[in-house]
Amino acid sequence: MATREVEFWYEFASTYSYPASMRVEPAAQAGVKLVWKPFLLGPIFAEQGWNDSPFNIYPAKGANMWRDLKRICDADGLKLTLPPHSFPQNGLKAARLAVLGERAGWTPEFSRLVYRANFAEQKDISDDKALKDILTTLNLDADATMAASQAPEIKSRLRRQSEEAKARGIFGAPSFMAGDELFWGKDRMSEAIAWAKRA
Amino acid sequence: MATREVEFWYEFASTYSYPASMRVEPAAQAGVKLVWKPFLLGPIFAEQGWNDSPFNIYPAKGANMWRDLKRICDADGLKLTLPPHSFPQNGLKAARLAVLGERAGWTPEFSRLVYRANFAEQKDISDDKALKDILTTLNLDADATMAASQAPEIKSRLRRQSEEAKARGIFGAPSFMAGDELFWGKDRMSEAIAWAKRA
Repeated sequence: MATREVEFWYEFASTYSYPASMRVEPAAQAGVKLVWKPFLLGPIFAEQGWNDSPFNIYPAKGANMWRDLKRICDADGLKLTLPPHSFPQNGLKAARLAVLGERAGWTPEFSRLVYRANFAEQKDISDDKALKDILTTLNLDADATMAASQAPEIKSRLRRQSEEAKARGIFGAPSFMAGDELFWGKDRMSEAIAWAKRA
Repeated sequence: MATREVEFWYEFASTYSYPASMRVEPAAQAGVKLVWKPFLLGPIFAEQGWNDSPFNIYPAKGANMWRDLKRICDADGLKLTLPPHSFPQNGLKAARLAVLGERAGWTPEFSRLVYRANFAEQKDISDDKALKDILTTLNLDADATMAASQAPEIKSRLRRQSEEAKARGIFGAPSFMAGDELFWGKDRMSEAIAWAKRA
């Protein structure tokens, strides 16, 4: 492989993507180019017959996920204060904004702030006000940026990115790709980075 | 907690239980009492509406599991030569034998041999001959032991153990319990052991 690149595929409703988003850059450090890839998991889940998070559909799995996520956040020094009844949140608007930010380069910082709003600040990330507050924090023109994120070109870029995820075998979030090698889950973050460095 | 004990809950059809079974004792070492808990996942999956492995029901997830398992086995120096079309195997007879062996203490070694037969030797673990070969390797009277494993008491002990798994929140295998703290998956093996040692 020519470039040592790791793609970080994430969905704003995904619980384990929260600690992953906070830790992926320090984990990658020098030697690996990290590419943030927002996508929508909903259409992939829908094709599997799920119209809700599997953590809601399968309660025992869900109960253990919340406990496990708490242990991870405790170990990583991350706050976790999501009220479970608000899960999963609708991350469509946030994902369009994340796609919009790719060219200007504010996608990683924006994405971390969205995860914090969702999982540590009990905010509604489908709410325009919450998203505009984040854009303002990034010194962006909140109204103009929100409007730009609704452009057909952005909507279709997010759609294509989500289709690409599915075509490349992604079935959950976070996922990491080192070339064609797919690593699923925050647990595989370091392994994916090590794989890219070795390649 | 009075005793530093970790329960290793496993099901013979479970793919990740194979490397877990091979590595759990070295990982536990001194300071933790390891309790091997064979159980049946089928009834728990059936209640979730699955009459096959989720790795078969959801092909993208299944494809990544086989690749991920191969990476794990490579890293751990374990052979993996299961033909995927024979997955999952029926582990009922093996599980009854594992329950039978608890008192005499041959359950761990028996279980590792069953996993090896299933995942490294392409053997059919629902076949009496394959199981008897394993019992013979353990210097047991294969015919008498097979017969003893069919006793109503053993069948009902396995049934109760599987019901206990469900009652305690277990939804997949392998799982590890340190007291009431449930850790799901081979990825959580070390954390479960560390948790028990800290308690």
